[in-house]
Amino acid sequence: MPASPRTTEDPAARGAGAGPIRQAGLRAHNLALVLGRIAGADRPPSRADLAAATGLTRATVSALADELLRGRLIAEVDPAPRAGAGRPAAGLTLAPDGAAGLGLEINVDYLAACVLDLTGRVRHREVRDQDLRPLPAAETLDRLAGLAAAARRAATAAGLTLAGATLAVPGLVDPTGLVRWAPNLGWRDVDVPGLLADRVPGLAVDNEANLAALAELHAGAAPASFLYVSGEIGVGAGVVLAGALYRGARGFGGELGHLPVDPAGRPCRCGSRGCLEQYAGQEAIVAAAGQPPGSTHRLAELAGAGDPAALAALERAGRALGVATSGAVNLLDVGAVLLGGGYARLAPWLLPALRTELAARVVTAGWAPVEARAALLGSDAAVIGAAGSVVRSVLAQPARWLARAAA
Amino acid sequence: MPASPRTTEDPAARGAGAGPIRQAGLRAHNLALVLGRIAGADRPPSRADLAAATGLTRATVSALADELLRGRLIAEVDPAPRAGAGRPAAGLTLAPDGAAGLGLEINVDYLAACVLDLTGRVRHREVRDQDLRPLPAAETLDRLAGLAAAARRAATAAGLTLAGATLAVPGLVDPTGLVRWAPNLGWRDVDVPGLLADRVPGLAVDNEANLAALAELHAGAAPASFLYVSGEIGVGAGVVLAGALYRGARGFGGELGHLPVDPAGRPCRCGSRGCLEQYAGQEAIVAAAGQPPGSTHRLAELAGAGDPAALAALERAGRALGVATSGAVNLLDVGAVLLGGGYARLAPWLLPALRTELAARVVTAGWAPVEARAALLGSDAAVIGAAGSVVRSVLAQPARWLARAAA
Repeated sequence: MPASPRTTEDPAARGAGAGPIRQAGLRAHNLALVLGRIAGADRPPSRADLAAATGLTRATVSALADELLRGRLIAEVDPAPRAGAGRPAAGLTLAPDGAAGLGLEINVDYLAACVLDLTGRVRHREVRDQDLRPLPAAETLDRLAGLAAAARRAATAAGLTLAGATLAVPGLVDPTGLVRWAPNLGWRDVDVPGLLADRVPGLAVDNEANLAALAELHAGAAPASFLYVSGEIGVGAGVVLAGALYRGARGFGGELGHLPVDPAGRPCRCGSRGCLEQYAGQEAIVAAAGQPPGSTHRLAELAGAGDPAALAALERAGRALGVATSGAVNLLDVGAVLLGGGYARLAPWLLPALRTELAARVVTAGWAPVEARAALLGSDAAVIGAAGSVVRSVLAQPARWLARAAA
Repeated sequence: MPASPRTTEDPAARGAGAGPIRQAGLRAHNLALVLGRIAGADRPPSRADLAAATGLTRATVSALADELLRGRLIAEVDPAPRAGAGRPAAGLTLAPDGAAGLGLEINVDYLAACVLDLTGRVRHREVRDQDLRPLPAAETLDRLAGLAAAARRAATAAGLTLAGATLAVPGLVDPTGLVRWAPNLGWRDVDVPGLLADRVPGLAVDNEANLAALAELHAGAAPASFLYVSGEIGVGAGVVLAGALYRGARGFGGELGHLPVDPAGRPCRCGSRGCLEQYAGQEAIVAAAGQPPGSTHRLAELAGAGDPAALAALERAGRALGVATSGAVNLLDVGAVLLGGGYARLAPWLLPALRTELAARVVTAGWAPVEARAALLGSDAAVIGAAGSVVRSVLAQPARWLARAAA
């Protein structure tokens, strides 16, 4: 979020080119500045509050606020009654009925969609459980397009306008949105934005654990640096360092699921052996618990009822998670491990063994211990993170949205 | 290194406080700017070249250069002869006979010291092989102080003045220089700067793999992001991301040596089991090769002579390194693994098995492969990195050095 106002006297804006371009850049910067203040405020600020906070003049703030109001990015709310003379000024808040973000998710055994408004509230949500592994990628994308169309209709019915869409996938995604590899889906080099160009134009694609980690970060209860472990059929991770997602030198970081926990152990779908997923993926836990494939949703229920096989399987998975996350913590030196995705509801049974391994294996455990706990968000973290990334890009660049809305 | 000049017209300098303080900050900034340009130039620039490159006036550059000359941070060299009229201007270069950095190293089986001048040339180097594990920390530090005194005398004899000292240790160091834990030395909470305050005042302390990785980065042949693996009796790592050392959220990152390669395997000095060090540390390799303890220096010789036990032990170590570094690469997504420290000379026998594991286990191997090779610098990388960190801090903050030299 921009931190300081720019006026034409500012050398950063001066000399940036010819007059009109310079003015446009200035306006875009200041729109983002004012909108960012409104988004980050504890209570709806007045125009005067915003002028004081940003260093812009009252007149400039009013003009910018009017633009944001016309573009339905902000709304006016009644001021809190106050003592003293004079009519109190109206407060400004993010509009709950303007732009919204569409989040989509393809996972191994479900598809999901959600619509988030600018205030961060979920306005629509749909999950379709189905095993996608037998389907060709084109068929899965067809079904996803159907879910996206339904979400768009729901958004329109609620008076919202979708500003963009982001898709979460359980795989390695390059910066163009090409899914390089999703081992659990059997995908290689699937050009998702290209294949959906007509039905979901401008689609962004990202790794599901990355988006879930961002959702957890923006949900507000996470520390500044943490390892987010997303447990579905595959095991992914998002690495957050000093309040920002760490994507790796080439964009493919955070692949915890293929950390070896037993290098000579079971073969993995990735072609290697003994990977964490083979011991702590949800289907591996289900199999170890003696349950039929596909019954991952019953695990918490069985464990809650004290089923010995389920408890033993979860303890073993917790131990494998502890071995792998200890290695990650020793390398990254983060102070927290958050269990998210499908792990969030299994955390009570995974955490004891995981914590034992962390205490034994993390080299700083004696003086800089590592917290392990369930993430705030569960299995919908990735799809919420996907929608949230659209919302955050509108908030960071409101001028783009206003130009589109005007066109 | 600062990137742009500041004048009193610059708003970043304006309003920074009262006149004298502001002027001093400006001078310090511009001294560093000019010195940085001289350090980074392909050939010695003239004062006119520096004025053109920095945007400062000729008069300002001349005054700053005179100060740097008086402080023996730079020297004048004869200009290259050139065609055309007029006497060519003198070139400016880093002084080889002014400030220097003292690097010190405590490892498990040796002590080392080196003196680096501003141009990066090693002017003095001493290594004392001895097993330090039986000694109490105070005795080891006494011997180190002796080595430091000898290095100081050598520097003085060469006309150099030590600007500071940095010590490399094989352990976890907190930001105050307290060695929290060095498992292979048996150290816990050793306040090295405090214990050496009289004999090596102002000593900085850092992890040996971090300093070695920095030395490799500044040696110029390394990529922008890499995992540097330092193999002595312990195994350490330095993580370099986008040209900067990644220290971890709390300063203790890069602990590769305790990544589990066989979670149920041999007990480790760290209290855990199956850590990489137990399979790829130099003493573990020596034992597997059927050689007596302490003969780590004979490993390369034996392997070179085709000794089957040594070759098998090195192959096994390479495999363990491959398992651990694959995990690290999957998390960090760096494009290169550099084998440094004692591994540099063993690389020919470690690399084949290491590369096989990387190819099998790194999830991006199919489209974003990982290079594995020997580091440029060998066992003296850490002590050179330690001295280099002193030199770089003089180059980054020349005003501090000039104030000290004047006092």
